[in-house]
Amino acid sequence: MNVTHLECAACHLEHEARRLLNLCRECGKPLLVRYDLEQAARTLKKESLASRRADLWRYREVLPVENDENIVSLGEGWTPLLRAKNLGKQIGINQLYIKDESQNPTQSFKARGMSAAVSMAKELGAQKLAVPSAGNAAGALAAYAARAGLECFIFMPDDTPRANVVECEQTGAHVTLMAGLITDCGAEVARRKEAEGWFDVSTLKEPYRVEGKKTLGYELAEQFNWELPDVIIYPTGGGTGLIGMWKAFDEMEQMGWIGSERPRMVTVQASGCAPIVRAFESGQRFADEFPNAETVASGLRVPKAIGDFLILDAIRASKGTALAVTDEELIAATGEIGGAEGIFCAPEGAACLPALKKLLAAGEVSKDERMVLFNTGAGVKYLEAFS
Amino acid sequence: MNVTHLECAACHLEHEARRLLNLCRECGKPLLVRYDLEQAARTLKKESLASRRADLWRYREVLPVENDENIVSLGEGWTPLLRAKNLGKQIGINQLYIKDESQNPTQSFKARGMSAAVSMAKELGAQKLAVPSAGNAAGALAAYAARAGLECFIFMPDDTPRANVVECEQTGAHVTLMAGLITDCGAEVARRKEAEGWFDVSTLKEPYRVEGKKTLGYELAEQFNWELPDVIIYPTGGGTGLIGMWKAFDEMEQMGWIGSERPRMVTVQASGCAPIVRAFESGQRFADEFPNAETVASGLRVPKAIGDFLILDAIRASKGTALAVTDEELIAATGEIGGAEGIFCAPEGAACLPALKKLLAAGEVSKDERMVLFNTGAGVKYLEAFS
Repeated sequence: MNVTHLECAACHLEHEARRLLNLCRECGKPLLVRYDLEQAARTLKKESLASRRADLWRYREVLPVENDENIVSLGEGWTPLLRAKNLGKQIGINQLYIKDESQNPTQSFKARGMSAAVSMAKELGAQKLAVPSAGNAAGALAAYAARAGLECFIFMPDDTPRANVVECEQTGAHVTLMAGLITDCGAEVARRKEAEGWFDVSTLKEPYRVEGKKTLGYELAEQFNWELPDVIIYPTGGGTGLIGMWKAFDEMEQMGWIGSERPRMVTVQASGCAPIVRAFESGQRFADEFPNAETVASGLRVPKAIGDFLILDAIRASKGTALAVTDEELIAATGEIGGAEGIFCAPEGAACLPALKKLLAAGEVSKDERMVLFNTGAGVKYLEAFS
Repeated sequence: MNVTHLECAACHLEHEARRLLNLCRECGKPLLVRYDLEQAARTLKKESLASRRADLWRYREVLPVENDENIVSLGEGWTPLLRAKNLGKQIGINQLYIKDESQNPTQSFKARGMSAAVSMAKELGAQKLAVPSAGNAAGALAAYAARAGLECFIFMPDDTPRANVVECEQTGAHVTLMAGLITDCGAEVARRKEAEGWFDVSTLKEPYRVEGKKTLGYELAEQFNWELPDVIIYPTGGGTGLIGMWKAFDEMEQMGWIGSERPRMVTVQASGCAPIVRAFESGQRFADEFPNAETVASGLRVPKAIGDFLILDAIRASKGTALAVTDEELIAATGEIGGAEGIFCAPEGAACLPALKKLLAAGEVSKDERMVLFNTGAGVKYLEAFS
């Protein structure tokens, strides 16, 4: 195992790695895992990857689990990076790609984070896991907790898509539906967790979901033959995937796999819940809670993200941007992507398309740049959005 | 390309390969693709597979497309074979596995067949594709047709799960919902196809879906390190997967990859629609149409399968069996598998569990045999079954 320690993403205080921890004990911000990358690079070589397992654990040396037996896996990751020629032609982009995360266990990118987090929770002795969720994180936690033999407690808004509720029930989770938003659910977990003995696996409130998610960055690099794309368009709720990719790029540079160039990171949010877009536009490093959050793209209905500064830092450092699209635009985009490429995207993933069109119209991206849209999950889990 | 010809599965009449064909021109039974396997084996070697692409096209030499540019792919196949230790322990089986086909594009095993069939339809010049479907085949055809830029026409019973209807609409298919069953939808396609210029891609009414499905057999062999399991438990509607695996085993034996031993092939159907079980029990080679077919496992609601004799031949040659389970049993099994392993199965896939329990109780399988259950799709596509 190559983990050296945990480090606070804000104040950089070191924390020891082999304990169940949530946030920085000094400043309350997220903890990130640090590795001895020189040691990792001795066995993890670009050339050795081709014959490794077809899931995210192919990057074993830069993942946090010590004992292989604690890995809780359902085959997550190593999803296809699909060339979108038809769609590209329709909108005038020559090298357009879709990273299709709907092909994960539980049909969303949340499987990546939960595979890593539940593996570590198991390794470090947690018995009961709890999470507030807008939907897909709940389904993923329920699945991985079941596979690990751990109990789990799910808190979701009462208007979460029914598919998410049913998948949690069918995989044995304790499900509570609450009036309110994911932030209210998070408050409920925080209020009860000590008395109940729950380990809180909320987005970025434990250090390992982001480790699972960072494999998105490793995969993109490997699938593009170690030359990163020019632009990454990413639908951002809690932002773990974007933060994770940004971390992966740094790790790969330190291992000598890639250079210092980075893709421009573009955050897409829904007009009805766009805290990061607002903060980006107003030059803030932290985002205010977005009032009266509302969008059919349930994964984007995150009015306050604890990793806001990490998202905003990455956008700015990469010379990227943040923009919002309306629910009408993102729902229409679902049919447009589906009809052109046969990929029935989650509404969050579909939101990337109107964002790309706006960037193109504004001259912020050019037709010959290599671009990746992230489809974070399967559209079939959102039937309510298509009625 | 290693295809030599097409051969009727019943009367063995040869047909030429490079034309759009449906059924045998003499006897009206399914056509199967034959290869020069000696030639295929020159470049397709077991040792060369580890570094090949992580989808079913890794078995390129035994797949029918001539020109790589005609391959219509969304990343189908090479799905995980998951060890089910928790579930095995609960029911007293030591080596239990689940092949998780929910991780395909469009969340079901139907993607395999449609990737191959649409690729060939494109290569051979079809413009409009039509299919009757119980649900998931429709979603898969719609997706692959969109990706290929072909028009497609879907006919489904009007009580098909809503997820299947929505996925077809969102990927640009023409959808017609009909009163009746898949057989009625098939009759409608047959009635109109000539006038409309549709190529009929019904199960086993064209030769290539089974070629995509046969990769299930190649994958099992590769994932088990070339030693096939003792028992395969397979939920059977049209039966293409079972027929395809059986074909794959023969091809692999001819290439010298495996010996002559075969797994016992077990067909599972729903009590409300069990034509193969009836025919197996009464010693018939062809199955009568099952009257008043009804089950929540929509993919099993196939009262008459054109490949009936191929399914029954494989069951008998392998010393396997066929048995039915009730809807109550298969729905309960969904929660049981989900709670034990975190896999939210399609009801069809879940049906394998009560079947296995019956076999175990009857002494037809023993606890130390290596067994595989097939989860054919994602449970989230069947919300109606869980209300």
